[in-house]
Amino acid sequence: MGAPMARRLIRAGHRVRVFNRSLHKAAALAADGAEVALTPDEAAYGASAIFLMLPDTPDVEQAIASIEPGLEAGQMIVDMSTIAPAAARALSASMAAQGVDFLDAPVSGGESGAIEGTLTIMVGGTEATFSRARPILESLGKRITHMGPAGAGQMTKLVNQVAVAVTLEATVEALMLATRGGLDPELVLEAIGAGAASSWQLNNLGPKIIARDYRPGFFIKLLRKDLRLVTEVARETHTALPGLSLVSSMFDAAAALGHELDGTQALATVMEALAGLKQ
Amino acid sequence: MGAPMARRLIRAGHRVRVFNRSLHKAAALAADGAEVALTPDEAAYGASAIFLMLPDTPDVEQAIASIEPGLEAGQMIVDMSTIAPAAARALSASMAAQGVDFLDAPVSGGESGAIEGTLTIMVGGTEATFSRARPILESLGKRITHMGPAGAGQMTKLVNQVAVAVTLEATVEALMLATRGGLDPELVLEAIGAGAASSWQLNNLGPKIIARDYRPGFFIKLLRKDLRLVTEVARETHTALPGLSLVSSMFDAAAALGHELDGTQALATVMEALAGLKQ
Repeated sequence: MGAPMARRLIRAGHRVRVFNRSLHKAAALAADGAEVALTPDEAAYGASAIFLMLPDTPDVEQAIASIEPGLEAGQMIVDMSTIAPAAARALSASMAAQGVDFLDAPVSGGESGAIEGTLTIMVGGTEATFSRARPILESLGKRITHMGPAGAGQMTKLVNQVAVAVTLEATVEALMLATRGGLDPELVLEAIGAGAASSWQLNNLGPKIIARDYRPGFFIKLLRKDLRLVTEVARETHTALPGLSLVSSMFDAAAALGHELDGTQALATVMEALAGLKQ
Repeated sequence: MGAPMARRLIRAGHRVRVFNRSLHKAAALAADGAEVALTPDEAAYGASAIFLMLPDTPDVEQAIASIEPGLEAGQMIVDMSTIAPAAARALSASMAAQGVDFLDAPVSGGESGAIEGTLTIMVGGTEATFSRARPILESLGKRITHMGPAGAGQMTKLVNQVAVAVTLEATVEALMLATRGGLDPELVLEAIGAGAASSWQLNNLGPKIIARDYRPGFFIKLLRKDLRLVTEVARETHTALPGLSLVSSMFDAAAALGHELDGTQALATVMEALAGLKQ
């Protein structure tokens, strides 16, 4: 995700300095006009805005720990990773103590959204910091919403993932019943894809499920990480989410079947296993 | 559903004779130009096409049993109720033995779809009968799909209801996490309602759930009946539908909480009960 987002920032006229733990990934952006840094603090040094896009909470905490000594009051950090809301709140508070503005701004829309600049961006932080970041975020995303104080962006992203995961389960179960019921599943999508049964998941991933095309739009491995964060927040807030709990188990089974690096639509393989169908 | 559909047929220029077990409901259509029959066989007698719209399998079987003595070869029955696919296949076969054409043609889209003539119609039966019925169906619905032989329309409707019910669960769980997570749920719908989390259920019923507006678009009582049919077919075809099983239990709880005659979005009250919130 980071590379296409950096490219959009460059194309929008920003001066962009990049760092990646796999240095060749950062180096690949030199041709696009990025300056390539060899360490996180070199990338962050003196920058008015510092963007992070990392897999999980500890990655973000480590990155911030490594740039922290060089941070100066007035800099702004925009973390676009999906991490625990509580961690985002803690980071925001510790940055505020140093005069550094912090936003949690996780995204939805996958690699294609990053390339096309059509990401949905859900932002937590102060109104002032949101206003400061907004002009930059507008070259990355389309629907950019200030959700509330620190952590509110991450919380919104987790709500998004609950809807995504359970709606995907709806899609795979509907298509499995269609197949077992002797119907042509493509014709079923045509018949039901515009009414009360319709969803982004059904209309976009349904055809891939039918074609057994499991190439990743979004990795099961990453969705499982997000669902772990959901489960943590649900425990903390005493929120029973029975459907989400079930779907988390289904994704555990998808991982067991070897589909961690496939797209989320490979959840369908779990239904196939339950139906006694060959993989 | 039957009344607005009859009105559309009248408006399309058809001569329509109506019967309802609650005679005053049929009588109300006289003002629109319908002839009102006092018995089912009077309504069916000599009609080129006989439309049924009834709550459940036994209602349809009884209606057909009562008109059967007067049926003549060449008549056509179009059953737009949602009933068991196996019952539709049996009725089709017994009608065929008398030279009567039969279609199962259940609909999706609710009362508003019936009024506006925008129903989704999923049809099972022979190609010839489908072609014969299609011009009439076009005044009732927009997306009219011939799904296959007898029973295929009913099977498609059940697939539709699996997607509807589990996607509604996705919606109520996402909104509950939003509320418990301290977010403004309306703002959440705005932020996530166009991306991978989006669905008809989220976008149409989400605002009603937030407003605790449980007025029925589609009764929980009727969806529970449809889910019973799904469960029967899943058993017959050895199809494990874990999400649907869970959601069926949630709707049983909604019925226990007194919401059978509320709209399906009152599923949210079950989440509220689980969250220890007052009704």
